[in-house]
Amino acid sequence: MAAHPLRKAVAPHVDALGLYARVRAESEALAAPLSDADATVQSMPDASPAKWHLAHTTWFFETMALKPNVPEYRVFDETYNFLFNSYYESVGDRQPRPRRGMITRPSLDEILAYRAHVDAAMEQLIDSGLQRPLADLIELGLHHEQQHQELLLTDILHLFAQNPLKPAYRDPAPLPVVETPRETAYVPFDGGIIEIGHGGEGFAYDCEGPRHQTLIRPFRLADRCVTNAEWLEFMADGGYRDPLLWLSDGWAQILEHRWAAPLYWEERDGEWGSMTLRGFQPIDPNAPVAHVSYFEADAFASWAGKRLPTEAEWEHASLTIDMDGVFADGGAGRLRPAPAKAGTGLRQMFGDVWEWTQSPFTPYPGFRAAEGAVGEYNGKFMCGQFVLRGGSCATPTGHVRPTYRNFFQPDKRWQFSGLRLAEDA
Amino acid sequence: MAAHPLRKAVAPHVDALGLYARVRAESEALAAPLSDADATVQSMPDASPAKWHLAHTTWFFETMALKPNVPEYRVFDETYNFLFNSYYESVGDRQPRPRRGMITRPSLDEILAYRAHVDAAMEQLIDSGLQRPLADLIELGLHHEQQHQELLLTDILHLFAQNPLKPAYRDPAPLPVVETPRETAYVPFDGGIIEIGHGGEGFAYDCEGPRHQTLIRPFRLADRCVTNAEWLEFMADGGYRDPLLWLSDGWAQILEHRWAAPLYWEERDGEWGSMTLRGFQPIDPNAPVAHVSYFEADAFASWAGKRLPTEAEWEHASLTIDMDGVFADGGAGRLRPAPAKAGTGLRQMFGDVWEWTQSPFTPYPGFRAAEGAVGEYNGKFMCGQFVLRGGSCATPTGHVRPTYRNFFQPDKRWQFSGLRLAEDA
Amino acid sequence: MAAHPLRKAVAPHVDALGLYARVRAESEALAAPLSDADATVQSMPDASPAKWHLAHTTWFFETMALKPNVPEYRVFDETYNFLFNSYYESVGDRQPRPRRGMITRPSLDEILAYRAHVDAAMEQLIDSGLQRPLADLIELGLHHEQQHQELLLTDILHLFAQNPLKPAYRDPAPLPVVETPRETAYVPFDGGIIEIGHGGEGFAYDCEGPRHQTLIRPFRLADRCVTNAEWLEFMADGGYRDPLLWLSDGWAQILEHRWAAPLYWEERDGEWGSMTLRGFQPIDPNAPVAHVSYFEADAFASWAGKRLPTEAEWEHASLTIDMDGVFADGGAGRLRPAPAKAGTGLRQMFGDVWEWTQSPFTPYPGFRAAEGAVGEYNGKFMCGQFVLRGGSCATPTGHVRPTYRNFFQPDKRWQFSGLRLAEDA
Amino acid sequence: MAAHPLRKAVAPHVDALGLYARVRAESEALAAPLSDADATVQSMPDASPAKWHLAHTTWFFETMALKPNVPEYRVFDETYNFLFNSYYESVGDRQPRPRRGMITRPSLDEILAYRAHVDAAMEQLIDSGLQRPLADLIELGLHHEQQHQELLLTDILHLFAQNPLKPAYRDPAPLPVVETPRETAYVPFDGGIIEIGHGGEGFAYDCEGPRHQTLIRPFRLADRCVTNAEWLEFMADGGYRDPLLWLSDGWAQILEHRWAAPLYWEERDGEWGSMTLRGFQPIDPNAPVAHVSYFEADAFASWAGKRLPTEAEWEHASLTIDMDGVFADGGAGRLRPAPAKAGTGLRQMFGDVWEWTQSPFTPYPGFRAAEGAVGEYNGKFMCGQFVLRGGSCATPTGHVRPTYRNFFQPDKRWQFSGLRLAEDA
Repeated sequence: MAAHPLRKAVAPHVDALGLYARVRAESEALAAPLSDADATVQSMPDASPAKWHLAHTTWFFETMALKPNVPEYRVFDETYNFLFNSYYESVGDRQPRPRRGMITRPSLDEILAYRAHVDAAMEQLIDSGLQRPLADLIELGLHHEQQHQELLLTDILHLFAQNPLKPAYRDPAPLPVVETPRETAYVPFDGGIIEIGHGGEGFAYDCEGPRHQTLIRPFRLADRCVTNAEWLEFMADGGYRDPLLWLSDGWAQILEHRWAAPLYWEERDGEWGSMTLRGFQPIDPNAPVAHVSYFEADAFASWAGKRLPTEAEWEHASLTIDMDGVFADGGAGRLRPAPAKAGTGLRQMFGDVWEWTQSPFTPYPGFRAAEGAVGEYNGKFMCGQFVLRGGSCATPTGHVRPTYRNFFQPDKRWQFSGLRLAEDA
Repeated sequence: MAAHPLRKAVAPHVDALGLYARVRAESEALAAPLSDADATVQSMPDASPAKWHLAHTTWFFETMALKPNVPEYRVFDETYNFLFNSYYESVGDRQPRPRRGMITRPSLDEILAYRAHVDAAMEQLIDSGLQRPLADLIELGLHHEQQHQELLLTDILHLFAQNPLKPAYRDPAPLPVVETPRETAYVPFDGGIIEIGHGGEGFAYDCEGPRHQTLIRPFRLADRCVTNAEWLEFMADGGYRDPLLWLSDGWAQILEHRWAAPLYWEERDGEWGSMTLRGFQPIDPNAPVAHVSYFEADAFASWAGKRLPTEAEWEHASLTIDMDGVFADGGAGRLRPAPAKAGTGLRQMFGDVWEWTQSPFTPYPGFRAAEGAVGEYNGKFMCGQFVLRGGSCATPTGHVRPTYRNFFQPDKRWQFSGLRLAEDA
Repeated sequence: MAAHPLRKAVAPHVDALGLYARVRAESEALAAPLSDADATVQSMPDASPAKWHLAHTTWFFETMALKPNVPEYRVFDETYNFLFNSYYESVGDRQPRPRRGMITRPSLDEILAYRAHVDAAMEQLIDSGLQRPLADLIELGLHHEQQHQELLLTDILHLFAQNPLKPAYRDPAPLPVVETPRETAYVPFDGGIIEIGHGGEGFAYDCEGPRHQTLIRPFRLADRCVTNAEWLEFMADGGYRDPLLWLSDGWAQILEHRWAAPLYWEERDGEWGSMTLRGFQPIDPNAPVAHVSYFEADAFASWAGKRLPTEAEWEHASLTIDMDGVFADGGAGRLRPAPAKAGTGLRQMFGDVWEWTQSPFTPYPGFRAAEGAVGEYNGKFMCGQFVLRGGSCATPTGHVRPTYRNFFQPDKRWQFSGLRLAEDA
Repeated sequence: MAAHPLRKAVAPHVDALGLYARVRAESEALAAPLSDADATVQSMPDASPAKWHLAHTTWFFETMALKPNVPEYRVFDETYNFLFNSYYESVGDRQPRPRRGMITRPSLDEILAYRAHVDAAMEQLIDSGLQRPLADLIELGLHHEQQHQELLLTDILHLFAQNPLKPAYRDPAPLPVVETPRETAYVPFDGGIIEIGHGGEGFAYDCEGPRHQTLIRPFRLADRCVTNAEWLEFMADGGYRDPLLWLSDGWAQILEHRWAAPLYWEERDGEWGSMTLRGFQPIDPNAPVAHVSYFEADAFASWAGKRLPTEAEWEHASLTIDMDGVFADGGAGRLRPAPAKAGTGLRQMFGDVWEWTQSPFTPYPGFRAAEGAVGEYNGKFMCGQFVLRGGSCATPTGHVRPTYRNFFQPDKRWQFSGLRLAEDA
């Protein structure tokens, strides 16, 4: 596992200021291609406007770091606490989530001014030297902002996909097609009592700990993700039409929403293409399938005679390799999943697509949410969601860890979510 | 009745070009205070984005006038036919109405460029001399655009009302309070066979004709609209809590939506105020109540021991006075209803607030919708709606006529809709 | 117009007791083929359980006649006021309409005992001699009960239609097919000022008056109803697929509910049949089409190049013929519409199917609802509904009049609703 | 652990016929207090009519045992396969679940005749000697029927609770109040690798296996269930009003449905009572709270500073005691949870109320659903549900086992669901 870059931020002798500046600048870089209107509209209740992401992450620093710690801090605008609180019940009332897109004012420019105002105060605060727990809180705020960077990208993709003109967020030139071996190999792992979860130095979300022992059985893990070509085989074989492959709730989704392909896929003149951050593009057969729900991932695994890995299996396996992959690179990346590299052994564990595991998102043994507002972070979502691992092409570089637990409801498809198969040894 | 200004447009020897330019410029003037984001967001399925209003009215000229009549006309953007068709089934598929707010691109600037492109071609077409039926169609297009000008204002008011910051579309300085006599007088009218509907020269929508005889009975009509002060009495007397005052469907609305005051009203520290195009403002007791539904108007009339007038009564009475009142004046008006002028006799028939009549919107005897796409204009809405008469403070000056029939479903409140009482003689 | 049978009930020297007994017995006869379960289930919010109809009509007599007038009357069960009030806000809380089907107890037998209890007291009351306004109230109660008799039949038909076994309420043997002439003739009527509405002796609902003058124009009325054969032509010609034939709200219904034929119609092996009170039966081509909504009736008229009559036209024309037709005959009738008799002149005006008119259900000039609970009868529904005239094969014999105004929302199809065409002369 | 009674059914030398007859008779005994109407109505989509339970369990034997194995078997009614299939996609189309209450015919008597018809054939089949896999299938059918027996009771309770008359399914005399000690003791258990799941002889559902090792940590388990008195403290302390106690989805339920007490609770004149199978009854403070959702159970545990046990912890602990408790006893039981017996040590593990665990319902390692229709039994529900353990006062005696996994969505409350607290040692 690579050294954790953000950890350095609040470690002694490290450029905390530089890190703060870099993460904050990345958000603004991601918003650069967006118009005021692009940044304002909310395309569905699950998504948020880009402007809201930019403001909410700023509100976090203002509310959690500046107001309690900097007596002379002047709040930028008193109304923003109502507008940009996400779900912190303990911090007061807030704009209802499905109505976030009504906020045409403040404008994107005003939000950027808000960011500058808070950044100036934050930089002064950081520069004055940080102690725990404030240092931890700021570090949390930066990780929190990186999460919203990924959501900003996936929410913009969803918004642009609603537009019949299919605008491109980034350069719409097609990416070169990479040829890769088609066969999947399975990498074996022993069973036994292992340790998972975050325990040592460095930043992690509360839900990643406590580090604890768990018992796994011998298993084998696919060396790469399921590809679009394989998904097309599943479709051609009637995968979306055979109820016996599906969880009951998944089949209900199919009947209600008529799913017949991953989200954003569209057949034009007999060829499948997909809306992407680079506009409408042909499907790349060798790239990992993305934008599938847990229900689809699970049905695919049934069809393939395999299963999804547990999160313990995934984490255990991931420790055997380096943590590199296709990430967002501050918006400079492909912003699409890439085919697995040639070679052997586990690949694509990090980046490209989040990988659905079969594990419901539940507390690790001994888990306790933090006191106060930041305690409302992860624990209250530990119901009805499944864990995804590894990050995606929209995840900021350096944001994930082997212990990182992402989670979504099993019907969600707008993230870059794919899968990797497993089987009992 | 004042001479009809638009009529002149296509009459011989009249400045048709000037009229076209004036109406088109008014739309742009109305949009001037709006940001790209303001002009993009749709606050509810009934409302449309300002950008959509600007584009759809332009699409009307492009599709109905230019494409069939100007062979060399170059369509500005082929995709706009899908984006900006409203509901013309005969002109092809279109963006679903509730998803109009997803179109962040084209931007407001691009739509303004679209307008300029079409205007250039239209001006050339008009300049080349117009014959019927093309002249009639262009006249219809201008009236159509004026309707959308009013909707643009009411839709922006609705959007801004969703924003907790209650932004002002126009100068938020409160308007001076005007004192007016509090008593309502009732003006008597004889019964008998009268003629209503449009029949002579000048423009009118298809649904305003044919002119025809109808039988009315002697009646008396209030000389002014119901005021906010009177509405506060109704509220204080439990008007919103007594089911016996209400139509059954109206009472269902109250139970579902907890109506207890007109739309946009809000009690703050014991004082009622209301969101307006000038931001949040105190209620003006002498001004006509606005933003009430048909259900509320009807319940108020029951409470007052009166009734709403029929549209025949209203039209008949309106012919006795001049057609002046508080209109939008290209966005330069008050943009709020004004108290009735001092004096006696019928006042406030035109402008200020649309007045609910008790008449369902039905075809006049002998009505036939026009052939082709423009025939989809009014006839297909002749079900489940009630007629309103007289125009409002958001209606473009010169747009209404005594025969003008506006119509909305009885639960709608986002227009400047009020009422005037009547009684049997 | 035939003498009005119920009028005699409370007229001097007439057998009021006999009439009361006869109407009440008819309800029980209609319920005779039903099991306890049949009588309990509610198949949709618009429908009510048969048991509820039997109890509610009894509650009316208990609440309106016995409790205020018979001091010694002992209420059968205090809980029934909550259970069997329909919508009288002035008589207290009640079981919510969509939950009427939850009342498995009291059983059908208990409701019959309730009826007997109330009938005994009512007969004693009637026998003691009636004065107005009590006599009027009882007469109203009997007409009210007859309305519920029709609803009981249409609600049972709807319930049985939900059952895949398609049970028959009555003898399922097919009825003999009657051959009739296929051509429709149009009967001309002059225009002028006419009088409509109820004004003289005899019972009528409040909404049938006041009798008043109205102005009609010369028109021609089809001599019979639109038949199933004609409806099949409309279907074959794409009537359900052409949006230009439909009101906007009607087209929305088609898109949402995928209407492609009248309610209860089903194509089996290329032949159209329909669920009826006699089970699933082949379509009779010569019988009037039934179970069509206003939207469908209006679209058919557009397709045929005709229009629906107004209620004034219908009433005026109906006075020229006798008031006989195919009625329910206490459940002994066909319970299906019959083909028009051979011959010429207006036929089928009464019975067979209710005929949609183009008239919204609005108050006649001078209409005032009665004071008190019975005033909640019709006036509060004067919004969003259309008038139907003439009665149907499920209407009790003797229940309708030329002035009778039935009314339903334009999307309703579970009544025996059909249409007759008209045109301007 | 008590010997498993049903196991004997298909073991050599055992009275399989007697067992079949006993289970089948119990269903009919449970239905004995019900009228045809009671047995027909469906009070919500989650519930099924009693008649449906009686028929569906019979359909199981007819479809799975008789049709494939008894060539001369005559199907009772071909239409029943459509009516009474529950969710077996592999056995064809079926009546949609939310419309099960529309089936007023066949009547309850006809369903009883259906049962007799199938029972006669089944008894002949069983009498002829059973081999695997048919013997296993019949055993499964009997367990399946017992599950539906419990559902029949909980569904009737829900139906009767909708009736304002609050009818009693059983003798409505209040049960004697039992005094019990109020203090909860916590019983400690060691951690380590344990085995859970079904593995040996005797019947179990597929989802109870495979038996497998799992790692637990030292924990302590409450010696009895949370009581109504404790729940009243939670309520009095604002438990339903503090969002910080709740899972996010649970809080959404509170806002939407205004939960403020367990299901069926109602405050009358300052005293809490509850609808029960014995009618409306006062709350018994010492009895276990029932009819709480997972969300409520989890919030209560947070409030109490404890947690819910995992299913592994629960199963491990349950092996230390006998499997007796308050069960349904063929409908002769209390049909209400009873206070814990005096004494010390683990009590109430079996019977009284199902106990929510913190474990999502997921496949055990190595789980594979069975081939064919019976494979659609449990696996397809392994998403979005939580495991409950131990059985309830509505569970047939002998039906549960220590390994038994019941499961429901976290918002469900109509089962007899309660909770027991746990904590880390």
